[in-house]
Amino acid sequence: MKKKAVVLLSGGLDSSTTLFWAKKQGYDCFALVFDYGQRHKKEVRHAVKIAKLIKVPYRILKIALHWEGSSLLNKKMKVPVSRSLKEISTGIPSTYVPGRNIIFLSFAISYAEAIGAGVVLIGANAVDFSGYPDCRPAFYRAFQKVVEEGTKKKRIKILTPLIHKTKAQIVRLAKQLNVPIDLTWSCYQGGKYPCGVCDSCKLRAKGIRESS
Amino acid sequence: MKKKAVVLLSGGLDSSTTLFWAKKQGYDCFALVFDYGQRHKKEVRHAVKIAKLIKVPYRILKIALHWEGSSLLNKKMKVPVSRSLKEISTGIPSTYVPGRNIIFLSFAISYAEAIGAGVVLIGANAVDFSGYPDCRPAFYRAFQKVVEEGTKKKRIKILTPLIHKTKAQIVRLAKQLNVPIDLTWSCYQGGKYPCGVCDSCKLRAKGIRESS
Repeated sequence: MKKKAVVLLSGGLDSSTTLFWAKKQGYDCFALVFDYGQRHKKEVRHAVKIAKLIKVPYRILKIALHWEGSSLLNKKMKVPVSRSLKEISTGIPSTYVPGRNIIFLSFAISYAEAIGAGVVLIGANAVDFSGYPDCRPAFYRAFQKVVEEGTKKKRIKILTPLIHKTKAQIVRLAKQLNVPIDLTWSCYQGGKYPCGVCDSCKLRAKGIRESS
Repeated sequence: MKKKAVVLLSGGLDSSTTLFWAKKQGYDCFALVFDYGQRHKKEVRHAVKIAKLIKVPYRILKIALHWEGSSLLNKKMKVPVSRSLKEISTGIPSTYVPGRNIIFLSFAISYAEAIGAGVVLIGANAVDFSGYPDCRPAFYRAFQKVVEEGTKKKRIKILTPLIHKTKAQIVRLAKQLNVPIDLTWSCYQGGKYPCGVCDSCKLRAKGIRESS
């Protein structure tokens, strides 16, 4: 019997690549998608498209992160745009949602324990990233310890296969795995087409440019 | 200016005592109440009554822990009743909700970071408890490390003032603090009156009995 894995899927390039990678490794994947009050629902729709395409069961969890303070949640705030790649690499931007990955991982661990999955995968990346503290290896090591101390089975492993990859390496991996890159959605804004100027669009463009 | 604190409030004896304790310590308290698909809504109503009584602002977070597997969520399963206190003290019962306190704490940390609170309080107890892994000191120490690694400010402290107390000591503290014990709700079942036979009722009765 295949080993079950819970995969956090946002519909972006990184999480989609992680899902395809997990499937390639032979895991029986269960995708978890969050509708958490982000500025637009486009991400969620793309996540569903990706899960359906690869025939992975998915659940959409609606959680209201009521509190404002992040430009990714609060439509009255502006998403930072046109920052240089150097600017992106320093400091924590206003798109940071307090403790978001802590919350996502918590649900993933709970779900994994409920369905008997031994693995939770998240497409976090600490190379070409926006400086969010909950994307770094030390955070995942600390969370692994929480799992060991705070769950019944203690053995759920958190895997972050992309954490040390550059965006270019992620794009190359995505191509190898036949991830439908055009079907993934990374842009922080919810327009008809990606804006091209937010941090996420810039990092993605850099990856695609450098991958070829 | 008073230091802000987020307090996880379930409406039970332990969390209510924790809230009163935090207020006595001089914290400007913000209560977080979860409506997470538990068998009954009675807990939530009691939490609101407690928060209103002590004039603490509260937020109710609705999170659907869709997955079944715990008798605290799944009405088709039976809550274990009439177990002896010795039985209660061994093993993890079916009322265990996978990773529940991990999820609750994650939201509390996120909320604390959003409102600039330096402290998160949870009424966990590892003496007269039902054996849940996410009630033990080692779990909270591990979570503290997650906060330091995964948040922007890194300084939110998790406090568990009841963790080493017996139920009798908690009841005595509750009395000292003028907690309206009759207004708190600990029973796992949602009847008009507490059932008296579930683990939670038994532990509470033991505490009240031994406190006088």
